[in-house]
Amino acid sequence: MEIRALTFDVFGTVVDWRGSIIAEGSRLNREKGLNVDWGAFADAWRAYYQPSLSEVRDGLRPWANLDQLHRENLAKLVPTFGLGSLDEGELEHLNRFWHRLHPWPDAVSGIARLKKRYIVAALSNGNVALLVNMARHAGLPWDAILGADISGHYKPQPQAYLTAARLLSLQPGECMMVAAHNSDLDAARQLGFATAFVCRPMEYGRGQTQDLAPTQEWTHVAADLVDLATKLGC
Amino acid sequence: MEIRALTFDVFGTVVDWRGSIIAEGSRLNREKGLNVDWGAFADAWRAYYQPSLSEVRDGLRPWANLDQLHRENLAKLVPTFGLGSLDEGELEHLNRFWHRLHPWPDAVSGIARLKKRYIVAALSNGNVALLVNMARHAGLPWDAILGADISGHYKPQPQAYLTAARLLSLQPGECMMVAAHNSDLDAARQLGFATAFVCRPMEYGRGQTQDLAPTQEWTHVAADLVDLATKLGC
Repeated sequence: MEIRALTFDVFGTVVDWRGSIIAEGSRLNREKGLNVDWGAFADAWRAYYQPSLSEVRDGLRPWANLDQLHRENLAKLVPTFGLGSLDEGELEHLNRFWHRLHPWPDAVSGIARLKKRYIVAALSNGNVALLVNMARHAGLPWDAILGADISGHYKPQPQAYLTAARLLSLQPGECMMVAAHNSDLDAARQLGFATAFVCRPMEYGRGQTQDLAPTQEWTHVAADLVDLATKLGC
Repeated sequence: MEIRALTFDVFGTVVDWRGSIIAEGSRLNREKGLNVDWGAFADAWRAYYQPSLSEVRDGLRPWANLDQLHRENLAKLVPTFGLGSLDEGELEHLNRFWHRLHPWPDAVSGIARLKKRYIVAALSNGNVALLVNMARHAGLPWDAILGADISGHYKPQPQAYLTAARLLSLQPGECMMVAAHNSDLDAARQLGFATAFVCRPMEYGRGQTQDLAPTQEWTHVAADLVDLATKLGC
């Protein structure tokens, strides 16, 4: 079946969330006279990510979008990281770190090349508003932004992928999931998506232990998104 | 309340569906040796549009997206317009006329200017796939495509507008509906949206009788989308 659309994981695959938080946090240290270890902060914030999503996936709480989950988890980090001096507006601004993440250096040009031949869609656990603001900030040329609050399901739940295919009026086999995470590709493959693994060995910094290499024979394996464009003949 | 997003009606407001169908149909007459009056054909096809949407709105049938409704209505036109010689693939191609509509001459540059200051989102009764293909074909630089199959409701149902505001994480008062149709603006205003009327006196051709002028004091009235950008200081 001919591939018509590429559906992209975003956090880690397209944008460097950890490096972005460290960069913006370092500026905040200077501006506010803080002394936060933003690498440790980013890791701690992200460590709450999957447990938060699981509570929603498992029906332990009603739907909450990623901005809400990030905000709740940020509240837990405030005492630990000495952020008690920030007021509500400053914390809200901090929470929108995720709207201002920087793309990996290959992401904008790679996606632009892939867009010439394929529909390029964000298929992320981020909410639509977060992804729209990120795309405007980073210059990501998406054809469609399919945030998790459209399906009301978080990956790797099947409904997240199947809703994307349905909204694009495509069969799963006409879609290729592009991700730096083997688990995301595994879930997509089980539904019939083609798969492209993109290596992001620095997503979690120098100490990264997972997703350093493909764990299955994915349809494609690429060093980055420019390499993927080349491999797909774009 | 400060406006953050412009939500655009698409058919008639951004793209010239009637002129596009006439242009592509005229080529089809030459290529296939047909003798169809494509202006009459476009009018007849569009005349089925609101009745089809109403059947869905009124719960007389389950959800069907606009591609499906267009296809059913096309079938009714085949005998009347002498299209019986076209095979299934050719009719399917004809049905995707709506994916290939041309923008009004001011649309791409107007939306690009508006995008510098505002989030620009398609808020259309078209389905996502139709609107994605149209945007790729016409070069429409949407930040977000909020097709009707996302909310599962057709304008002017309130859920269509409110789902768009919710997905953009905005209050209705932070959104401005941009449309060439007074009824669309009326529905949006009742929910708290700001409103911008764009004059499209040729949408239905020379004989157009409705929506030639604003019927209420809308927030803004513009001659076209470039004029709207100027009026909004973009």
